Amino acid sequence: VDLDGIRELLRDFVREREWQRFHTPKNLAMALAGEAGEVLELFQWLTPEESLAIMSTAKAEAVRDEVADVATYCIRLADVLGIDLEAAIRAKLVKNVAKYPADKVRGKALKYTELD
Amino acid sequence: VDLDGIRELLRDFVREREWQRFHTPKNLAMALAGEAGEVLELFQWLTPEESLAIMSTAKAEAVRDEVADVATYCIRLADVLGIDLEAAIRAKLVKNVAKYPADKVRGKALKYTELD
Amino acid sequence: VDLDGIRELLRDFVREREWQRFHTPKNLAMALAGEAGEVLELFQWLTPEESLAIMSTAKAEAVRDEVADVATYCIRLADVLGIDLEAAIRAKLVKNVAKYPADKVRGKALKYTELD
Amino acid sequence: VDLDGIRELLRDFVREREWQRFHTPKNLAMALAGEAGEVLELFQWLTPEESLAIMSTAKAEAVRDEVADVATYCIRLADVLGIDLEAAIRAKLVKNVAKYPADKVRGKALKYTELD
Repeated sequence: VDLDGIRELLRDFVREREWQRFHTPKNLAMALAGEAGEVLELFQWLTPEESLAIMSTAKAEAVRDEVADVATYCIRLADVLGIDLEAAIRAKLVKNVAKYPADKVRGKALKYTELD
Repeated sequence: VDLDGIRELLRDFVREREWQRFHTPKNLAMALAGEAGEVLELFQWLTPEESLAIMSTAKAEAVRDEVADVATYCIRLADVLGIDLEAAIRAKLVKNVAKYPADKVRGKALKYTELD
Repeated sequence: VDLDGIRELLRDFVREREWQRFHTPKNLAMALAGEAGEVLELFQWLTPEESLAIMSTAKAEAVRDEVADVATYCIRLADVLGIDLEAAIRAKLVKNVAKYPADKVRGKALKYTELD
Repeated sequence: VDLDGIRELLRDFVREREWQRFHTPKNLAMALAGEAGEVLELFQWLTPEESLAIMSTAKAEAVRDEVADVATYCIRLADVLGIDLEAAIRAKLVKNVAKYPADKVRGKALKYTELD
């Protein structure tokens, strides 16, 4: 993804609407969680199997839109906070590799703290 | 951001831990919302002004990590669903430009439906 | 539940800590969603069957605590907004009875708008 | 609040619609978080001051309904899990009194772990 390009498009979108003062990190964190809640609602009554097939149903467009909304607010929040999102994702992945050693967690969904 | 590269790294991370069966769209939607909740908790008692300065505090690393977690699950959910995330974001932005005409919403946080 | 009694205990708890200024409706809405996110995280990797048996596992206390946290912030938010929570629940249930006619939705998880 | 009465009404509501199999703890946790997300969305662009005045605006009914939805799913989740909600709230409050000693946290929104 050309994240830099999207980040610039979002800055323009906000500037043209003079929405900068609404886009505090606090408000964007709320919007991010609100959109994540909309993704949840699309899946809440589905079986795991139905959730795997959702893109073949009439809900496909809504799923695409809501996942895009979460991504958009995530990019926007990172931008307002001055976070380099790619670097942050890579750094967190390095932490997760150390936190969840493959040979200890293989095939288990447990949090590492539950292992011992 | 080199999203393609990150998507591949995440696939490897999941495969090495044999976590594929946990990563149904339903479960990933829950994880996404759970991480968005952790972002919320970092901001919930802050004033708008304090939220703007959070990266200069001891919470900066936690903010970077939690925003990265949301982005990671968003990329992973899109991958499992076969959604082209960049295309979805751009398509949603086009919809938002039409839904929120700059001359009608300028300086207002109202939903368009509240405008008349 | 003696909700009135709990509401008073919570008022005392907040007053003794001088936390009133943090308990704006906006902040309480964030705290409510943050706690709901913690409930989510307890269930996110479980199968439906495992979720039914969670109170027989080591997670039982955490489940009880997190569900209590959600209820607590819900009571607190209603109190700060001057909402009569019991009346609001009953009024919403009346709406839901009308929105989801038993003979139309029996055995279906679909939203009514998906029926027709 | 007559929680016992509401719990029974909700059981009847679910039974008449044969929705029991959808009401697993996992699915109810998702519905709870989804509704908390809808509460969030009502407050996300408001200033703290505006959030205090929301019940005097056209949004009052939506706020009442969404807070009721969260409470409803909270009661329903507790019921399905066999949790005594009033006892759980009181037990958690006792923990919070110990975790946040009034003389240490007075006027501060910090988590106790940040105090030293």
